[in-house]
Amino acid sequence: MMDIDRIRADTPAASRLAYLHNAGAGLMPTPVAETMKRHIDLESEIGGYAAADRESDRLEAVYGSVARLLNAAPDEIALTENATVAWQMAFYALRFCEGDRILTAEAEYAANYVAFLQVAKRTGAIIDVVPSDASGELDVEALERMIDERVKLIAITWVPTNGGLVNPAAAVGKIARARGIPYLLDACQAVGQMAVDVEAIGCDMLSATGRKFLRGPRGTGFLYVRRAMLQLLEPPMIDHFAAPWVSRDEYRLRDDARRFETWENNYAARLGLGVAVDYALDIGIGPIEQRCRMLADRLRGGLTSIRGIRIRDLGRAPGAIVSFTIERYEAEAIVGSATAAGITIGASDPSSTRIDAEIRSLPPVVRASPHYYNTEAEIDRLIGHLAGLAPR
Amino acid sequence: MMDIDRIRADTPAASRLAYLHNAGAGLMPTPVAETMKRHIDLESEIGGYAAADRESDRLEAVYGSVARLLNAAPDEIALTENATVAWQMAFYALRFCEGDRILTAEAEYAANYVAFLQVAKRTGAIIDVVPSDASGELDVEALERMIDERVKLIAITWVPTNGGLVNPAAAVGKIARARGIPYLLDACQAVGQMAVDVEAIGCDMLSATGRKFLRGPRGTGFLYVRRAMLQLLEPPMIDHFAAPWVSRDEYRLRDDARRFETWENNYAARLGLGVAVDYALDIGIGPIEQRCRMLADRLRGGLTSIRGIRIRDLGRAPGAIVSFTIERYEAEAIVGSATAAGITIGASDPSSTRIDAEIRSLPPVVRASPHYYNTEAEIDRLIGHLAGLAPR
Repeated sequence: MMDIDRIRADTPAASRLAYLHNAGAGLMPTPVAETMKRHIDLESEIGGYAAADRESDRLEAVYGSVARLLNAAPDEIALTENATVAWQMAFYALRFCEGDRILTAEAEYAANYVAFLQVAKRTGAIIDVVPSDASGELDVEALERMIDERVKLIAITWVPTNGGLVNPAAAVGKIARARGIPYLLDACQAVGQMAVDVEAIGCDMLSATGRKFLRGPRGTGFLYVRRAMLQLLEPPMIDHFAAPWVSRDEYRLRDDARRFETWENNYAARLGLGVAVDYALDIGIGPIEQRCRMLADRLRGGLTSIRGIRIRDLGRAPGAIVSFTIERYEAEAIVGSATAAGITIGASDPSSTRIDAEIRSLPPVVRASPHYYNTEAEIDRLIGHLAGLAPR
Repeated sequence: MMDIDRIRADTPAASRLAYLHNAGAGLMPTPVAETMKRHIDLESEIGGYAAADRESDRLEAVYGSVARLLNAAPDEIALTENATVAWQMAFYALRFCEGDRILTAEAEYAANYVAFLQVAKRTGAIIDVVPSDASGELDVEALERMIDERVKLIAITWVPTNGGLVNPAAAVGKIARARGIPYLLDACQAVGQMAVDVEAIGCDMLSATGRKFLRGPRGTGFLYVRRAMLQLLEPPMIDHFAAPWVSRDEYRLRDDARRFETWENNYAARLGLGVAVDYALDIGIGPIEQRCRMLADRLRGGLTSIRGIRIRDLGRAPGAIVSFTIERYEAEAIVGSATAAGITIGASDPSSTRIDAEIRSLPPVVRASPHYYNTEAEIDRLIGHLAGLAPR
């Protein structure tokens, strides 16, 4: 049983704000912020190098924590500046030739799609978008039909940024494994919200952020690379940490996933990430997922009955991102009115998920994303606020 | 006139430690650490996105501060995770063909050299090391003689990591400009220690870190790219911040140097970097440089008279990194004994600057790097400590 009172005591802002913007950046629990501030103090007291040395065990343990979160091994984890860098280090490590195909999904995130476009321009590779099924999820049968020997990568976003959709990541993994195709999964909005098991999913590479549902610091992310895949991937860029300079004309890539890192890092943020992951694991991802869905479903249920509000979520079992529009209101105006009422929510622009947005003719949508630390009362406050805005 | 008392009051550790390890990581002044901690608190109070919005003016001003430091324009600055990423984004943006030549210096940093090796392996480009002159500085006349139409890049480290050497960056820039060759300068150990003027130097790209002589946070760095150069460089990797996704099959690179950034960042660290740069500018880089040299020269002077100590610095006018060895002592043992005596110094391994280290048969060297906040008394303490170690 989750101790919501204790959790909310660790989240002081929760007493002042209905914070429903975890798909943007979650509120950090006090131990995360305190850990970072303590490390900054330590750096001021003994210097940045000595501080990292003194905390070396805890810094090393961050890899273990992330590995536990993903059901991976610590040597399959790289810690990065953000999820984008994590994704880029994996994606740009792959080699494509003219005519090679990259399969992706309709709601693929803009950051990834522009990288596809850059590589397509450089190499002549082709981007093919797998259509969605009637529910809005990636159509697994269509994916299967699209595969041929020219498909060199399947790269999709598990939980797209613009709504509740949860793509069938594990069904995709089954196909990727059966056909021996590298599979890169963007799990930015999934980690911290739901169970993430790289073995069950069958992905070869997975990227994620610390700052969203994991409630970690901004400027943190990580990359998982399956051990068997690791040896095949030379990072797109290296330094002497990724690849020690072993003789005048020779470098030797590290054996572990840290070959995707650089030498210098923000150690305060890394320690904060570790605490955030441990905090989530202590509560339990199962109960977290259950409560996230309960609160999101409550919100969707409440919004359904309000005239003029249209829920924009796709998929059979939407997750904790609730997207909607209100007739005659711009998304930003709705976000602003909620802010004024002490409720923090966000908006998602069509340019973040351009293909999906064009297919569905989506305007900017409002995005409310509850987390386990939220309460039913907060959800009802948002529903009440929106009901007050909606045309009667 | 520098107010050393006030400066040391802003550096509380200075009252307990003789901290002479600024070539590793400088001690942050209190306003830097306080700024970071305040931003972490703000993120905890209102969420990571709202906190960045609220501080947007100050975050924008960081570009202006870095630009002032370098005598550049704010749109020529990218803020990055560290100096390595800054350097990589510039270097890997350049295109090389078989037989193209990269000219570098003997004491080039390992991080950069392994990247040269990777690109050489990928493209068939050739790395040519410009010899040093009798003083140990890059031989400008030799550089001039080595230039032909196949030279596609000059990339050197201004102040190498392993000692006092200050390479003739501006003389190199004059040649690079005259011959129209792109010039990438690694200024990691120079910024914060000495005047850095990209116009006077004539470099096209310059990378640096926040954490060393600038006294900024770990995990911060920046890249300068000359405006004329910027339009020629497509970043090696992009996201939707660097290159907005403007239509289904098209991205458009930003016009400014932020095309080398990614969307997500550690804003606490960025704000800390801005405060660190402003702090240095307020004191004045001229006086800082003067005092750094005075203290380093005092240290070199004191060490010269001690039997068994050999100063390893190169160049006509060495800077604030003082490198040396002591007969019959390992560098790490010397660092450890100094630590025990409340004196923080560091060591530099031959693998950090392999070519120079091989030419000079260098073992690991001790590296003491004073800054303006240090005192003559601290320098003398180190001299006294080392005199006690040295063979009599």
